[in-house]
Amino acid sequence: MDIPARPDRAIADLRALADLTGGPGGARRLCWTSEWDNARAFLRERLGELPVNVDVDEAGNLWARLEGARPETVVIGSHIDSVPNGGWLDGALGVLGALEVLRTIAEAGTPPCTVSVIDFADEEGARFGRSLFGSSWLSGSIKPEDVRDLHDANGDRLADVVGGYGVDLDNAHAASSRLAGVRAYLELHIEQGPVLEAAGLAVGTVLGTFGVERHRVVFTGQAAHSGSTPMPVRRDSFLAAARFALAARDGAVRHKGVATVGAADCVPGVATVIPGMTTVLLDQRHLDAGELAAMLAEAKASADEAAASEKCTVVWERIWQIEPIPFDPDLIAAARRACQAVSGTDHALPSGPLHDAAEMARLVPTVMLFSSSTNGISHAKEEDTPVEHLDLAIRAYAQTVGHAVDLVAGS
Amino acid sequence: MDIPARPDRAIADLRALADLTGGPGGARRLCWTSEWDNARAFLRERLGELPVNVDVDEAGNLWARLEGARPETVVIGSHIDSVPNGGWLDGALGVLGALEVLRTIAEAGTPPCTVSVIDFADEEGARFGRSLFGSSWLSGSIKPEDVRDLHDANGDRLADVVGGYGVDLDNAHAASSRLAGVRAYLELHIEQGPVLEAAGLAVGTVLGTFGVERHRVVFTGQAAHSGSTPMPVRRDSFLAAARFALAARDGAVRHKGVATVGAADCVPGVATVIPGMTTVLLDQRHLDAGELAAMLAEAKASADEAAASEKCTVVWERIWQIEPIPFDPDLIAAARRACQAVSGTDHALPSGPLHDAAEMARLVPTVMLFSSSTNGISHAKEEDTPVEHLDLAIRAYAQTVGHAVDLVAGS
Repeated sequence: MDIPARPDRAIADLRALADLTGGPGGARRLCWTSEWDNARAFLRERLGELPVNVDVDEAGNLWARLEGARPETVVIGSHIDSVPNGGWLDGALGVLGALEVLRTIAEAGTPPCTVSVIDFADEEGARFGRSLFGSSWLSGSIKPEDVRDLHDANGDRLADVVGGYGVDLDNAHAASSRLAGVRAYLELHIEQGPVLEAAGLAVGTVLGTFGVERHRVVFTGQAAHSGSTPMPVRRDSFLAAARFALAARDGAVRHKGVATVGAADCVPGVATVIPGMTTVLLDQRHLDAGELAAMLAEAKASADEAAASEKCTVVWERIWQIEPIPFDPDLIAAARRACQAVSGTDHALPSGPLHDAAEMARLVPTVMLFSSSTNGISHAKEEDTPVEHLDLAIRAYAQTVGHAVDLVAGS
Repeated sequence: MDIPARPDRAIADLRALADLTGGPGGARRLCWTSEWDNARAFLRERLGELPVNVDVDEAGNLWARLEGARPETVVIGSHIDSVPNGGWLDGALGVLGALEVLRTIAEAGTPPCTVSVIDFADEEGARFGRSLFGSSWLSGSIKPEDVRDLHDANGDRLADVVGGYGVDLDNAHAASSRLAGVRAYLELHIEQGPVLEAAGLAVGTVLGTFGVERHRVVFTGQAAHSGSTPMPVRRDSFLAAARFALAARDGAVRHKGVATVGAADCVPGVATVIPGMTTVLLDQRHLDAGELAAMLAEAKASADEAAASEKCTVVWERIWQIEPIPFDPDLIAAARRACQAVSGTDHALPSGPLHDAAEMARLVPTVMLFSSSTNGISHAKEEDTPVEHLDLAIRAYAQTVGHAVDLVAGS
């Protein structure tokens, strides 16, 4: 179906939300606070103008359901919560873009299938450190005991705080029943990276979210005096780590993934002593599980080589791991067609950051669209996207939702 | 002159001193404490058996003067103070080795020139952080205002503490008058490094002390998300620092000096962010000022190349610098002849650590001999040298002093 959404209305809603919950320090929509309540009240006010049923599920997610000719459902949305001092678009673009799409559909009468807007609870995890809270209950990837005793900076327990919002952790999994009949999920988001901007593009189709391998890698050599130890007899752990970091980068380039050594710590860490031990943090990501596994295996071989060449040893410790979550091929194809029609290009890219869409994709055919991010900046008050890019992204998103409705209604 | 010193007597003295001022935790001869008093009382007791004048100069250095046929003087010695939990040989070998040489000379009657043993005050600087205290007053490289207000860990002022030992900082420079007539200084020391041991050698001649260039090198790139930033657009400051560290090592190898990156600090220093800024500490040393300057210039060029290749910038800040101090060619030749005669090899090497000899060499022809150090360890209770190496080193030292006496007496 054709969904002639009006980006100007969505952008006006975004500006109104920023006026209500932003300010000189950036967005103030931290989940499970009165700031978030204000943002949701704004959303409910806008939804109140439409012929939809609005309610909150057992996990705190807000749903707005527009009944269609068939019960099969297309879900659209994102999250209205933000990090402290966040940007005006992260999450909000997806929610208010979905609102505009729903508004446009509703204006045309009863759609061929049901369409629901969702505002996920606590995507950011900024208060308790657990991201993707609401969507994880839908997908079943979270357990009450994982989060019950998480505390915020003031010492308040997650279980108590979400309880104040009607979320009983022992019953939150019941929210997953909402996925019955759901046949597609589509989310619009800012890229939060530099790829589209660098390519001069307004919008792109997201292929899925990266798998991540995160390790602590410890090189051990021999501490010795910087002045009295000749170069040939040294066992310098920092030089081993330096070789390794460069090799890990080369591996990521070779496999078209990403790899980052984000931290290095030398012991004892003074100019007069050759580092006896150097610890680095390695973060590797790829959209393809096989490629990610190959990157990791090659990095381990590189670490062995780097250690051996400096007469050191090396030990790995896994910190965190998540598998790649590819999006749905049919929806990806639909999104690329929409981007091509709207913007004249059909660039597709993986997502480095995780999104609620990654949780949804575990059970429901899913796709995301990205708008560009100015300077690739997000989670900061400087977060922005040119208005003309927002315009194109909202149009492409609406057209993709139209394709999805056609797919679901025709199935 | 032939000086048939008996290493067994020197080693017995070393063991007696260790019994008196050592223990399970290592040597206890921290300068300006009762432990040091005990060590000096031991030394005075031994010197009391010889026909020498013993006194302490205005800077706290202990002198024992054996009058010769001529007033021109050869000075021999080292320092009896130690770091806390130090080893039994660092400094003590040079003082008690010199004592044995003086004893042997005295046993033969009046030498052709005057010979003095010196025990330098506070070579280690372990209490107040200022190394080479006593020798620096002789050479004139220290000023009262440099050290007056230094405090120890208990808050005691250096000026007050040394005052309790009769050292008036405003008059300490008067000690330099002791160098009138001094024509040579010779010091025996353990290597405190692995070079001789690795070469299977007992003893070596020291060519001089390294010059040092110590810098903080700051690479600045762009912090960005580890997941959303493709490899080609990154400006990773840690990778620039890694390239630089490897290049600095190559430069040291090329110039036959040493270079160490002893510490690295990434900002923000987390796995999820590409380091926007990485600071490393670089320590470069060489015996030749021109080679050291070339190493520094090449390291700066390498830093520029490493920064450019990672689209970063780099800034240098000098932390510390000292020029190389080469020893006297005639005395070096004499020491090498002595080592060859005693041990069958004449290996010569630079000293990474500084020594009182470096201060003496500013004004007086100077040379040092090194004995091997087991595992290169010093400043620790594990510090040791095989007895047969001590034996050879003391013999070679005595023979070198004999050459020096001949040189001075014949001049």
